Amino acid sequence: MKNLLKKNRVFQRLAALVIVFYTLSIPVWSQAPAGEAAAVKSFYDQALRDSRCYAWLEHLCYQVGHRLSGSVGAERAVAYTKSMLDTLGLDSVWLQPVMVPRWERGAAERVEIKAHKLKLDALALGGSVAGDVRAEVVEVLSWEQLESLGERQLRGKIVFYNRPMDPTRIRTFEAYGGAVDQRVHGASRAAKYGAVGVLVRSMGLRADDYPHTGTLRYDSAYTLIPAAAISTNSADRLSQLLKTEKKVVADLQLHCASYPDVLSYNVIGEIRGSEKPNDMILVGGHLDSWDVGHGAHDDGAGCVQSMEVLRIFRQMNYRPRHTIRCVLFMNEENGLRGGQEYANEANRKGEFHLLAIESDAGGFTPRGFGFDGDPAIADKFFASVEAHRELFEPYGLTLSKGGGGADISPLKSQKGLLSGYIPDSQRYFDYHHTAADTFDTVNRRELELGAASMAVLVYLADKFGL
Amino acid sequence: MKNLLKKNRVFQRLAALVIVFYTLSIPVWSQAPAGEAAAVKSFYDQALRDSRCYAWLEHLCYQVGHRLSGSVGAERAVAYTKSMLDTLGLDSVWLQPVMVPRWERGAAERVEIKAHKLKLDALALGGSVAGDVRAEVVEVLSWEQLESLGERQLRGKIVFYNRPMDPTRIRTFEAYGGAVDQRVHGASRAAKYGAVGVLVRSMGLRADDYPHTGTLRYDSAYTLIPAAAISTNSADRLSQLLKTEKKVVADLQLHCASYPDVLSYNVIGEIRGSEKPNDMILVGGHLDSWDVGHGAHDDGAGCVQSMEVLRIFRQMNYRPRHTIRCVLFMNEENGLRGGQEYANEANRKGEFHLLAIESDAGGFTPRGFGFDGDPAIADKFFASVEAHRELFEPYGLTLSKGGGGADISPLKSQKGLLSGYIPDSQRYFDYHHTAADTFDTVNRRELELGAASMAVLVYLADKFGL
Repeated sequence: MKNLLKKNRVFQRLAALVIVFYTLSIPVWSQAPAGEAAAVKSFYDQALRDSRCYAWLEHLCYQVGHRLSGSVGAERAVAYTKSMLDTLGLDSVWLQPVMVPRWERGAAERVEIKAHKLKLDALALGGSVAGDVRAEVVEVLSWEQLESLGERQLRGKIVFYNRPMDPTRIRTFEAYGGAVDQRVHGASRAAKYGAVGVLVRSMGLRADDYPHTGTLRYDSAYTLIPAAAISTNSADRLSQLLKTEKKVVADLQLHCASYPDVLSYNVIGEIRGSEKPNDMILVGGHLDSWDVGHGAHDDGAGCVQSMEVLRIFRQMNYRPRHTIRCVLFMNEENGLRGGQEYANEANRKGEFHLLAIESDAGGFTPRGFGFDGDPAIADKFFASVEAHRELFEPYGLTLSKGGGGADISPLKSQKGLLSGYIPDSQRYFDYHHTAADTFDTVNRRELELGAASMAVLVYLADKFGL
Repeated sequence: MKNLLKKNRVFQRLAALVIVFYTLSIPVWSQAPAGEAAAVKSFYDQALRDSRCYAWLEHLCYQVGHRLSGSVGAERAVAYTKSMLDTLGLDSVWLQPVMVPRWERGAAERVEIKAHKLKLDALALGGSVAGDVRAEVVEVLSWEQLESLGERQLRGKIVFYNRPMDPTRIRTFEAYGGAVDQRVHGASRAAKYGAVGVLVRSMGLRADDYPHTGTLRYDSAYTLIPAAAISTNSADRLSQLLKTEKKVVADLQLHCASYPDVLSYNVIGEIRGSEKPNDMILVGGHLDSWDVGHGAHDDGAGCVQSMEVLRIFRQMNYRPRHTIRCVLFMNEENGLRGGQEYANEANRKGEFHLLAIESDAGGFTPRGFGFDGDPAIADKFFASVEAHRELFEPYGLTLSKGGGGADISPLKSQKGLLSGYIPDSQRYFDYHHTAADTFDTVNRRELELGAASMAVLVYLADKFGL
């Protein structure tokens, strides 16, 4: 918003667009005829017969590999996806420069309980500082417990956060939301009481040996201490040991480091709108991944699905009224610089996003879409969509309130609609941020069905407005 | 029905029950209070926290293995599942004897195009006769084409049925239903025109090297000729070859054989109803599998889920009004003798099944239940269920008309409700009847969620009648 308010001309343009948007938006989709069922089916047929997204993902996984911001993999991913978008006959394909942080894991990470010859399966958390500490381990299951232990019992110790994800949450993202605060804030909260290192139970629901990395956020008020995730099996073993031993001492060695920012890119392709070229319908995912596995579900899947949406529209020779844009955002995992830069430039240029859809929850069977937006818009949208439920039901799609995505969240100030594509979530946290997030865990049909579902939502929004 | 009508006393008893059923069933579930949401959640909590079904499946897959009717594996599966039901504190656990067919594949099956050094990935179809034929291959894509080729072009040939499953059907079982006639009827229809052998494109949507076996049905009016499935990749290669070569000759060698019937068992456990012990709510799957892979999804999953339903009810110390029975049927794959024997004995004993649920579509994320039954019952049921949709929606369950299961189909004459548990179907035909149907392809949570969903349906039917 800051840039926007400074630039009065742009603000006026945007305000005008917003007013137009409100006016046009009543009622949403009210004109969608029953015959749209055939059109909807044609998008699925396209995706299930002729898709390229699975082959793109295979290349991204096996030929490019993981692609943390600032890495060679990220650079290659930019080049590869741009070259593929170039083959689709779009109106424009370009790279949007953005400076991104560069953090590297380094080699020979190690978490070990030498007295018990126990090596824990571990990965440094993204953004962690290096460290080489030997200290007693204290298990902590809640913030309250952390505080009550206080400096007296935590100074000089390694804090082991072991609060598990709640297996009874049907939507696994809710279970993730209920536990990930340990990973994000655990290091500084422990450092506040003098702890020298942190171990975090992996954000997964499965009992296995894969540590799940992911970003942490340091509070600069406290010492930056090294932090690593350990696998759920390792966490259970360590917890068991702590029950039987008076004192458990761990060695924690991390060799990670942060380097100066690096130039990278969002990759963008679009089909220009015939009536309202400055009103955007966006589909996107994030091109960066963590530095283990293939980043297949997180978020190679979302990238190739977004590319596939444009391929389908071109293949069907569909001329949209609004501009349909595919954006592969850089640096979702540890900075969100791509999403911020994209929104900043859109605001500068007066590009209004009436609908932005992000796919960043894996390449699984479609379950629906979640929507976020100004209540005045979102509520009307919902009332209208309810009247056309029959278009979505044959595909197992449910539309719900609440949702969006990290990369598109900076667009929220435009007051358009944000939507998160919702695939089935049961398996997502078996792979998320681990070496297990590989191409072979993605099912071709499930991936294609997701792309088709996104295309259908884009189509209906384009045809019937919002 | 035949047995039933002969036994007048039993028929009267059943007629009385049906009348009671009709009377009690208006309106269905009308009394279900909103507070049931907490009860429903408790079933899911039980399954997601303390289930045993995943461990049971692991044992069934790795310690027992595949278990075609009449095999040592089937015998072991009977003993193992009975021993596990014995640990649950049920009111009764027993084996119901049933004579089953015994067919064995034999060793060294082979389908080869020697002139091109091409070995096709093949499996004899279940029930096929042995054979050793060398003949020219003729590709056939429809029954019309088969007929128009006729005896002149088919006599002495190997017919290659290569009509693929339709990838654009969202529900993959519909795609299966549209192609499986080739596997079931292809041999005799080709033999009618003098063909000497049959190859069938595997019933799968994925391009891979796994042949999918499955039962065929011979028409005794024609010569019994050997028939094998070939993998989708092999089918594509063979089809390609037939486009470029004038004549393609294949060697087809199968060494399978049928043997006299063998004594086997349905495995049954029950919790007796406190009010209506002779009115049954049944959950079941089939214990036999094809003779490759683990039979993990087909149908180890359905068996352990059905056992889990009873475990949950016992664990919760729930006393049902009706008898809740878990039935692991023998011989679904190549005979249905278990299902028939079960229904026959139930009819003899005057046991009325007000609801029978079969899980035989894999251990994937729950999507809902399909219902079949006399319209007078099913329609009322639907109207009532609609009023309680909110109980199912948080779990992603949709209730639909049409469904059931092979093993419970002989119960249809009782005019109760039959229901098929519907998990997500996208991956099912990647595994179905192949060596790839192994334990590691089953996700623990998805399996548990299915068991919980079945338990909830049983609970609501028991508490509020039908």
